[in-house]
Amino acid sequence: MRTYTNVKDLGNLNEAVKEALEIKKNRYAYKHLGENKTLLMVFFNSSLRTRLSTQKAGMNLGMNTIVLDINQGAWKLETERGVIMDGDKTEHLLEAIPVMGCYCDIIGVRAFAQFENKQDDCEEKILNQFIKYSGKPVFSMEAATGHPLQAFADLITIEEYKKTQRPKVVLTWAPHPKALPQAVPNSFADFMNEADVDFVITHPEGYELDPKFVRGAKVEYDQDKALAGADFVYAKNWAAFADSNYGKILSKDRSWTVSTEKMALTNNAYFMHCLPVRRNMIVTDEVIESPQSIVIQEAANREISAQTVIKRILESL
Amino acid sequence: MRTYTNVKDLGNLNEAVKEALEIKKNRYAYKHLGENKTLLMVFFNSSLRTRLSTQKAGMNLGMNTIVLDINQGAWKLETERGVIMDGDKTEHLLEAIPVMGCYCDIIGVRAFAQFENKQDDCEEKILNQFIKYSGKPVFSMEAATGHPLQAFADLITIEEYKKTQRPKVVLTWAPHPKALPQAVPNSFADFMNEADVDFVITHPEGYELDPKFVRGAKVEYDQDKALAGADFVYAKNWAAFADSNYGKILSKDRSWTVSTEKMALTNNAYFMHCLPVRRNMIVTDEVIESPQSIVIQEAANREISAQTVIKRILESL
Amino acid sequence: MRTYTNVKDLGNLNEAVKEALEIKKNRYAYKHLGENKTLLMVFFNSSLRTRLSTQKAGMNLGMNTIVLDINQGAWKLETERGVIMDGDKTEHLLEAIPVMGCYCDIIGVRAFAQFENKQDDCEEKILNQFIKYSGKPVFSMEAATGHPLQAFADLITIEEYKKTQRPKVVLTWAPHPKALPQAVPNSFADFMNEADVDFVITHPEGYELDPKFVRGAKVEYDQDKALAGADFVYAKNWAAFADSNYGKILSKDRSWTVSTEKMALTNNAYFMHCLPVRRNMIVTDEVIESPQSIVIQEAANREISAQTVIKRILESL
Repeated sequence: MRTYTNVKDLGNLNEAVKEALEIKKNRYAYKHLGENKTLLMVFFNSSLRTRLSTQKAGMNLGMNTIVLDINQGAWKLETERGVIMDGDKTEHLLEAIPVMGCYCDIIGVRAFAQFENKQDDCEEKILNQFIKYSGKPVFSMEAATGHPLQAFADLITIEEYKKTQRPKVVLTWAPHPKALPQAVPNSFADFMNEADVDFVITHPEGYELDPKFVRGAKVEYDQDKALAGADFVYAKNWAAFADSNYGKILSKDRSWTVSTEKMALTNNAYFMHCLPVRRNMIVTDEVIESPQSIVIQEAANREISAQTVIKRILESL
Repeated sequence: MRTYTNVKDLGNLNEAVKEALEIKKNRYAYKHLGENKTLLMVFFNSSLRTRLSTQKAGMNLGMNTIVLDINQGAWKLETERGVIMDGDKTEHLLEAIPVMGCYCDIIGVRAFAQFENKQDDCEEKILNQFIKYSGKPVFSMEAATGHPLQAFADLITIEEYKKTQRPKVVLTWAPHPKALPQAVPNSFADFMNEADVDFVITHPEGYELDPKFVRGAKVEYDQDKALAGADFVYAKNWAAFADSNYGKILSKDRSWTVSTEKMALTNNAYFMHCLPVRRNMIVTDEVIESPQSIVIQEAANREISAQTVIKRILESL
Repeated sequence: MRTYTNVKDLGNLNEAVKEALEIKKNRYAYKHLGENKTLLMVFFNSSLRTRLSTQKAGMNLGMNTIVLDINQGAWKLETERGVIMDGDKTEHLLEAIPVMGCYCDIIGVRAFAQFENKQDDCEEKILNQFIKYSGKPVFSMEAATGHPLQAFADLITIEEYKKTQRPKVVLTWAPHPKALPQAVPNSFADFMNEADVDFVITHPEGYELDPKFVRGAKVEYDQDKALAGADFVYAKNWAAFADSNYGKILSKDRSWTVSTEKMALTNNAYFMHCLPVRRNMIVTDEVIESPQSIVIQEAANREISAQTVIKRILESL
């Protein structure tokens, strides 16, 4: 594997999940792979889970790990050719990225959607420049349009908890006070569409996700109908994607909050969320603290999804 | 050992000091203990000595170490249940803490007193939530009411430098321009009360420490009388603890500064301070630069106290 | 080697370059040297290349590495004796530096020129206090008047790319929107004066560098004449050094920008720069993207120069 940005990069998904579960049983069995190899983690945005779990994954594999926090305000990269750089941008990405590539063997990059220019976000400008110019294998630690380490961890978690061969999995929009990127729901849809599940997406009208990720998934605007019989409820907020409303909040309707009443409509479903989560906006205290909540187990699997991806990249070096 | 927050956690204090001195002689002898184990250091406040010495201690033991700086302003944790999280707090501690616990084997936490709510400080809200919810052994890297790694290092240093079986140890308040927590003097009293020393506390009236830590120690309001015949002078500023004045500065009286004249009252005492120290407020240049000043040796022992604590926790895993 | 601040510290320069090229062929061959040794990297200023390359170099040598970012605004060191520290400076360097020395075996320090007081900059106050008070070997990761890890990497790069026994190397000033220290051109001159090259410096009048570093080098105020027949063009901006103009910008004349026309005057020279570089101020897009540009290879050699220096220090412990 040379890059990891979406579900396709994993190849056969069943085999990837199987490999992940093997790694989870014995996460120090592959330390020889990372010997004398360096993982560089580049953060353009803040991070808790991704930072810790990916660093842990690299160390499990015996790698040296370097974390580079790029304070977006302080270190501005020029991205256009031909510019006379007499302003506040001190370095051009065409130098900065290959230089970072010099000092490591694998690069993880986190660069969120900016919600300033939809085309820039959709083109994954920063991530793709790392892929193109770093000279090293690159994996996404959440980019503008996807968060594939999260979605892979989600799939592993569903595999561990599912009680039927083909569970019903519902991705439901929920309210939030700030405009959030679509990266997590995009990647979740990207993965669920390839997995052996009955996948349904529910959200208020106007919150349609990029068709590139939704593909053939069923979209149901009535949350109650969507939740009926669900085995897994995956809650997440996102801002609107449609052109004229790109990055805008259209609703903060708390009737979409996942509550005990909503969960009662399901087949005693497990509750999932990528975290961090706003309690009593996205989900009630009662639901997230219930035995059916598997958000911590899901977070713990971030170490496993990251380790599986990094292991595969190491094997391909 | 599952937690380390006070002197009692060390059990027999003589044996703990003996073990520390053994470790100091050969600090790489226990690297097998930390193999494939991860130390997570969580800082809610800034740090120099604690950060470096604890990280070094973990690495001496062969551990992987991860440092997580939580900028208090940027990453606000909600602590109350039932709150609708539509404000500036993006994550609830009930998720954040168990998640951090997922990615490590041992957690060190630094969370100072806020001086906003005495009860919150005294209850050690943040530290205790880590102990309760992380699922992993937790040790204090300075909390609201104690700094037990510092006090353990202090005791090791006294053991190394004492010339009599039962030295006289004087903890003296000294002036400082800002309101400082009582964590260091509390833990120093906590340890000295259990050690084989003649322990005296001196401070201006109104600066009485929490009786929970002072216990049976002698309190002498006349600094000169307290210093008479001392073998060790331990200087430290702290703000008032008494309810109505909690967190306030009652005095900046520089006649309490530890000077050559003050040291002349002692039995050629060693001078100690946890650092950082304000020169010519807490202590004069002359005293801190004298051969009797052992502040650097004391700081060096922070690595040893941390390593002893982490070693014991590793042995209990 | 106990300190590394200038070319003299390397001793025989040919042997140093030879050793560096050996290390480059097999950079993991010396891991035993750094076992149970800790590298502390102290940054008073921000860093990309130096941070990554030096950390990588330490890890290549099997060391534990600790990075300490000292936010200059937040952590003010008092430097004068006798001061009553009742202001905003919380610690005196006379304590802070030996304490840092306690927790490591080797210290790297980055502390730029402040352009506030020429004498302070020229005396290398911060770097020299680390050398004097830390008790450990110290190397410069760019100080006020020199950047010897950069210059050593530059020399290695020239050695790798030179086509004649004694190439002509031209250091040319180029325009920049902000006032930059002289550290890089100083060290480059310091090294080139000792290397087997034909060394020429060119800059507008008024930009004369410190004679301590220029020594016998030829200074040519006409850039075109200087560039004639050059085998290597090393571009860099710096602010004025002369007393009355110390730290000032005297010119932003873009006729000094290294362009294709300028490069046409040379002997098909390689283009070098320490990075970060302002495109179309220092150098045109066309030149820096040309096959003759070796700025990335030069940056990659920062890992090698750092590793050679740290290896030598480890061997001397």
